[in-house]
Formats: sequence, structure tokens, C-alpha cells
Amino acid sequence: MERIATTRELQARADAERAAGRRIALVPTMGALHAGHRSLVETARAHADLVWVSIFVNPAQFNESADFEGYPAELDADLEACEADGVDLVFLPKREELYPEGFQTWVEVEDLTQPLCGASRPGHFRGVTTVVSKLFLAAKPHVAVFGEKDYQQLAAVRRMARDLGFDVEVIGSPTLREADGLALSSRNVHLGPEARRQAVVLARALEAAEHALAAGERDAAALLAAAQIELAKAPGAEVEYCELRCPETLATLAGPLCAPALLALAVHFPADPDGRGARVRLIDNRLLDPREARVRGGDRAPIAISLEERP
Amino acid sequence: MERIATTRELQARADAERAAGRRIALVPTMGALHAGHRSLVETARAHADLVWVSIFVNPAQFNESADFEGYPAELDADLEACEADGVDLVFLPKREELYPEGFQTWVEVEDLTQPLCGASRPGHFRGVTTVVSKLFLAAKPHVAVFGEKDYQQLAAVRRMARDLGFDVEVIGSPTLREADGLALSSRNVHLGPEARRQAVVLARALEAAEHALAAGERDAAALLAAAQIELAKAPGAEVEYCELRCPETLATLAGPLCAPALLALAVHFPADPDGRGARVRLIDNRLLDPREARVRGGDRAPIAISLEERP
Repeated sequence: MERIATTRELQARADAERAAGRRIALVPTMGALHAGHRSLVETARAHADLVWVSIFVNPAQFNESADFEGYPAELDADLEACEADGVDLVFLPKREELYPEGFQTWVEVEDLTQPLCGASRPGHFRGVTTVVSKLFLAAKPHVAVFGEKDYQQLAAVRRMARDLGFDVEVIGSPTLREADGLALSSRNVHLGPEARRQAVVLARALEAAEHALAAGERDAAALLAAAQIELAKAPGAEVEYCELRCPETLATLAGPLCAPALLALAVHFPADPDGRGARVRLIDNRLLDPREARVRGGDRAPIAISLEERP
Repeated sequence: MERIATTRELQARADAERAAGRRIALVPTMGALHAGHRSLVETARAHADLVWVSIFVNPAQFNESADFEGYPAELDADLEACEADGVDLVFLPKREELYPEGFQTWVEVEDLTQPLCGASRPGHFRGVTTVVSKLFLAAKPHVAVFGEKDYQQLAAVRRMARDLGFDVEVIGSPTLREADGLALSSRNVHLGPEARRQAVVLARALEAAEHALAAGERDAAALLAAAQIELAKAPGAEVEYCELRCPETLATLAGPLCAPALLALAVHFPADPDGRGARVRLIDNRLLDPREARVRGGDRAPIAISLEERP
């Protein structure tokens, strides 16, 4: 597995691979690789001859310096994971390589980045789209893979790639979950044991809304209520947002759903009462599609039955 | 000479040329090609195997709609000029191709675009750097050529390419001038005969400052005064700015110059008293280098002689 640290070297390498007709897939990461990232690598492998992973904790996308400084860094373990997963090349730029002195150019997606996480994390998505532009320009990939867990990020990167005309196909990869449903995230390690138990409410809230939909509920407010009832079951959970949005434009949805809708959650959990863990912000989301919904077998009963389905 | 209208086709063409080892030079233009553009093509030829010209009147960089609508468009003549100059390919995208529905992504250089033209043309440079990013991503050139006449634009594009890591060498090409010194510009055609006569004061102002420098003057205020005296000789000229700036950062310079300085001018001329022509805004600039300055032969006498050079 090759390691490259400079944009110039990576571009030369990309030129050579492209000239030889090999397809490059890029998986941009901030390290602290977990099974979720490794599933991105697997998705990448299915779309290309070469899988390249970038590891760079991007200061420009942290709106709080404590969050940046506390972001888990485990380079040796990350490199081992890449090696084990057959990654062909790891791009490991230093901060000065990507943000040279006098740096002052930003790539910004305007509307999609305003609501949801954008509302509470000023500058976050500008940092993301700027560094992803730089990674695309460095690696010249044919495809790039991002997790669907960070849905708004995926939507913003897709819009950016389309608007600027990047010659890159942006692929979303499904969220990986723990046995109890908690979405994998590098931030989960900061949850105390009690907060970890409570964190399952995000997945339960998404499921509750999906069950309501499957049972015939179409009203946006009622679907949100179904999710909020679950979130309220975690005494420590502080809900930042719980919203139904258009999956394309992220516009707020109200009234009866007639097309797929994004149910998006952000919830903060405090450190445990005994001081273990730290305050953690978790996000999760699910696409609710009223055209495909039906009562499915599962571990939880639907919370409503539509008129049509009553005996 | 080939014509291509879509980004996707141009990218495929660029990939093929790059894979074959051919170097591509891009000359981005808004059409209305004059000898100045044609000298950019010549510069491009010296740096590459293939010269590609883009012709696109970019709506995003016009801060006044009247300016956009009045911008000269002469596609047939432009294509003839390209053909005559041996241009290999012309990229002719439609507006919807570069700005698809829902477009909302901008590339912005922050500090360099604040002063000079940026102060009076809000959004102009954001439009320039965004469309140039798109053209770079479409044509994947090895080099791109811009006129030094639009110095701030060249500086912003250079900064953008460096900050984002575009694999493109940005080359400046010297300003072409009419016999009386007026810098070639697509906007010159809108000058009435009287305004055209007066417009020579831009070039004279730059020369006056250079002569002062050559004669030993180093004080920024005195050099600017030399330029302003010339500008004041045109009764119609309304000076928007006449400034000495650091050529790298565009920071204002004061006191004695010890390194190269950019003398930058923007001057408005009204329509002629008899109604001919229209109001036109012209810009021009010159690098003043105190380390190289000396009294040179020319059509005008130096306006000061340094102590050392006095007999």
C-alpha cells in the first residue's frame, strides 16, 4: 500500500493511472476508521480498479476548536485497516500542504447548507466542500464514496460536483449500524456507557416514523411526532433538530407526503452523571418513501393502521 | 477547428489528449476577440501542443445587467479569428450548460478580491473564479493564459488555482496597446470619438509614474501624484481608483517603495457630448519595479531627475 503526502505527487500518479485506463475511486476520511468507513472502501472497490483513501482531519470544517482537538486520531490503526482492506494508496497530506500560507479560497454550496447541521455549525459545510474540492483536484478520481449517514454532506458534495462540473461520480454508501441500531460514527467512542444506552433512541425514532408510514400515516407532523415520542424516552437527549425535508433541496416538508422525504435528526447527549464520556452530538437520518411504504415484518408493531388496511 | 458545447464531451476529449501525452493550453474568453486575445493564443501556443479557446459571456461576473446585455457578441468573427490563429478547439457552452437549474455553488477568493475593482463590482470576482473553476474542470488544461491587463483577475485566478490545488499553470500575457498606448479591451468599441481621444490618459498616467520612478522618485504618494496629473488632463475622465498596491497581496502601499508595486487605474468616460458612444469604464495597470528602474529612452521626458543622475 502506497502512501503519498503531496498534492503534486498524487496528481502525477492519478495522471499515470488514468492514462493507463485504470479507474480510481476516492474515499475521503478524517481517519479514526471504523466499520462504516470500511464499508465505504468496499463500495469503492465495486466501482473502480483502484481504491484510494485520504486521511486528513480538516480544520476548516470544525466550527468548534475543542471538537477539532478532541477528534480521535489513530493513524497506525487506520493504516492497518486500510492495508487489511486492500486499499491501494493512502493520501496523508499535512495541514500546510492543503492550507498553504495566505490560503483564502472557499468553495461554498449556498442553499443546501443553510438548514439542519448548517444552522448550528457555521462554516462547517464550507470547510467540507472546500477540502473535498481539493481532494478531488489532487486525486482526480472517477468516483468518490461518501456515507449516507452524513446525508446533508453527501447532498452538498453532490451539488458541488454537479454545479462545478467535477468529472467525478459521487456515490452514497448505506449507513452501518450497531446491533441495537446506533449508526456507526467516530464520535460514538466519546459516549459514556449510560449515554451509549440512550443513544439508541435516534435509530428507534427513525424506525417509529417508518413504521407509522408503513401503517399508512402520511401527515408530516404525525410522522415527526412518532419520531419525537421515541426521542423523548431518553432523559439525557437534547434534540437539536428532528425534521422532514425534501431529499433534493432540503426544503421543509409539511402536510401529506407524496414523494420521498428525508427524516433527519441531530441529538446531543451529555457526559454520564458519574463523569464518564463527554458531551456528544449525534446525527442520523432515513429516507421515508410513501410510494414504497407497507407494513413490514419487524421487531416493533406499527403504531397506526390505515383505514384501507383495517379488517 | 473543432467545436464542443458540453462539459462532458470536453472532459472526454481532454482525457484522451492527456492520455496521449499532449499538453493542453486553455484561453478563457468572453468572445469579442481582439488582437489582445489573439496574443493570448500566441502565448498559449508557446506552452502547449493544443490551444483551446472558450467563448462564454459569463452572466455571473456582470454586476450590472446593462453591462451584460451590452457586452459585444460577434460569434462568427470570433470563430474566424480562432480559425485563422490555428486554435485547435473552441468550447462554446450555453448558459444552461454552465449554470444548470438549482445552481448554487461558488468559488470565492476572499481577500484579493476586496479592493480595486472588487470594491465597485460586488460579486464580479466570485463570478470570475467560479466560471474559471468550471472551465478548468471541463478542459483539464495543463496551462491557462490570462491577460495582464486584468491584473486583479489574474491574481485572483492564480490564488484560486494555488489554494485549491488545480493542476494548471496560470500564465499572464502582456497587455497589447493601440499606437497611442490605450490598452486593448472589448469595451473600447463603446467609446465615442472624443472619449476615445481622452482615454489615452490611462496609459499616459502609467508612463508618467514610470518616468518618475526611473528618475529616482520612490515615494508612493509622489508616484501617484505623477499619474493623477495625467488623468486630470482628460476633462471627461472620472477616476474610480488610482492606487499603488502590493502585486502579491494587493495591500495598499505607502511611503518609499523598496519592492515591485502595482499601479492600478480604473477610469470612467462618459458618452460624447454629441451623444456618440456610451459610458465606459476602463482599467489599466503597470508594475513599477524600483530595483530595475532607470531613465529609459522614450517618447516623453522624465519629469524628475534623481540627485545621482544630475550632471
